[in-house]
Amino acid sequence: MKHITVLGTGVLGSQIAYQTAFSGYDVVAYDIDDAALDAARERFAKLAVTYSQQVAGAAGGKADDALARIRYSADLTDAVRDADLVIEAVPEALELKRDVYTKLAAVAPEHTVFATNSSTLLPSALAEFTGRPAKFLALHFANQIWLHNTAEVMGTPQTDPAVFEQVVEFAASIDMVPIVIKKEKAGYLLNSLLVPLLNAAGDLLVDGIAEPDAVDKTWRIGTGAPMGPFQIFDVIGLTTAYNVSIAGGEKQQAFAKLLKEQYLDQGKLGVATGEGFYSYR
Amino acid sequence: MKHITVLGTGVLGSQIAYQTAFSGYDVVAYDIDDAALDAARERFAKLAVTYSQQVAGAAGGKADDALARIRYSADLTDAVRDADLVIEAVPEALELKRDVYTKLAAVAPEHTVFATNSSTLLPSALAEFTGRPAKFLALHFANQIWLHNTAEVMGTPQTDPAVFEQVVEFAASIDMVPIVIKKEKAGYLLNSLLVPLLNAAGDLLVDGIAEPDAVDKTWRIGTGAPMGPFQIFDVIGLTTAYNVSIAGGEKQQAFAKLLKEQYLDQGKLGVATGEGFYSYR
Repeated sequence: MKHITVLGTGVLGSQIAYQTAFSGYDVVAYDIDDAALDAARERFAKLAVTYSQQVAGAAGGKADDALARIRYSADLTDAVRDADLVIEAVPEALELKRDVYTKLAAVAPEHTVFATNSSTLLPSALAEFTGRPAKFLALHFANQIWLHNTAEVMGTPQTDPAVFEQVVEFAASIDMVPIVIKKEKAGYLLNSLLVPLLNAAGDLLVDGIAEPDAVDKTWRIGTGAPMGPFQIFDVIGLTTAYNVSIAGGEKQQAFAKLLKEQYLDQGKLGVATGEGFYSYR
Repeated sequence: MKHITVLGTGVLGSQIAYQTAFSGYDVVAYDIDDAALDAARERFAKLAVTYSQQVAGAAGGKADDALARIRYSADLTDAVRDADLVIEAVPEALELKRDVYTKLAAVAPEHTVFATNSSTLLPSALAEFTGRPAKFLALHFANQIWLHNTAEVMGTPQTDPAVFEQVVEFAASIDMVPIVIKKEKAGYLLNSLLVPLLNAAGDLLVDGIAEPDAVDKTWRIGTGAPMGPFQIFDVIGLTTAYNVSIAGGEKQQAFAKLLKEQYLDQGKLGVATGEGFYSYR
């Protein structure tokens, strides 16, 4: 796999494209129009600065060189013309993604492998629209790809094992730690582990067992983790925590209500706004 | 609180007594007979070596000085004669603990506060046997007290808030981080958080989603934690993991079965035996 196209240049899409270019690949960044591509250009420039500061070996030119390996395109046919791998990172809406795959299937070369970065949709919900279910799977990255360098690889029952293996190797080649997921699983591995921990923490608060600070101290000291669950909530953002919790069971809905009344309604959305369970000012 | 008696000199009891003596208190270590006290003496001597190596300021005499502040007694009346605080760390058996509290209540001075280190019993299961429910609560330490220095403080509805506060202050005075738990909760805070995480990891294995190594890498990279859930299982010990899981729901019982067949039956009990999910040889 030599030529990589990334569809969508939002927060994750731009990080995936940049990390791939940073690793020496020629990358095409596709988005819907020139305005989106202008925004992408700014994102990439900021990423180059971030990498220069935070990634070993990135300063002294390498971070900027990556920018020169990114080609911009708002024309899907043009964007995927030479692609060996298309990584799709468009917004998390089923209809939108199905539409993208239908169009993509019509214009991409036959050999091109498609990978979705979707966090919330299983790849089998999309496979039939790709025109190549054997060459389709999920390749899921974490935010701040340069720090949290996992690439969860998850196929559908139709994914060709050889394609799966190729994508695992590609992930390793862009300095990710490939995480092999053997069966489809909503939430992949990280969220499958994190959500139960965060729910348990939410329960402790809702039930009046302990304050966030006590819960977090216990977790940090007991496990050596750098952050307790309420610190993680603040990083994820309390709006996301609310959206996940309100869709859950009775206890989680109570937690959502608490989040809304005590935090969201007061503009406390977590680290991003300078205050959530903790103050970051 | 100046005079502290610790009942039971097993793994946790000896650590609690030693940490208390290390912090400058006069401590009485009580156990049932001279053989148990001889074993305690060895435990304390080993702890002094461990502290000298691992605890800042412990080398150069301080770790050994602590040993001189520990008095040994196999006579309950004698052991608690001057005690301001009795910390009970006898084996986790309800009948045994009730018996100990009944005897203790008869011989301890009226002002003495009792604290149980029980991991699995709620203090209200013991309160009526103490003869002083207002002066009784749980004070729960973690193994390797010098590294994992939380002291979870948890009262019953009958615990006097002033006594609760005194015990919080005592915990801080022996260099613990006091964790205030506002209502009784089985598992305190740490296990209330850890068990759901470990269950989620067990589910991923039982369901054939991913291998332990993939799960652990994801957790470490995604959260910055030093250990993933299967590494934690190995530290806790797979026998304990089995005992907890076999008492759980369907999925957990399947995990218990997997643990038994693939690990316990082959003598792989975790870090303690040199092999569990990982090899430590």
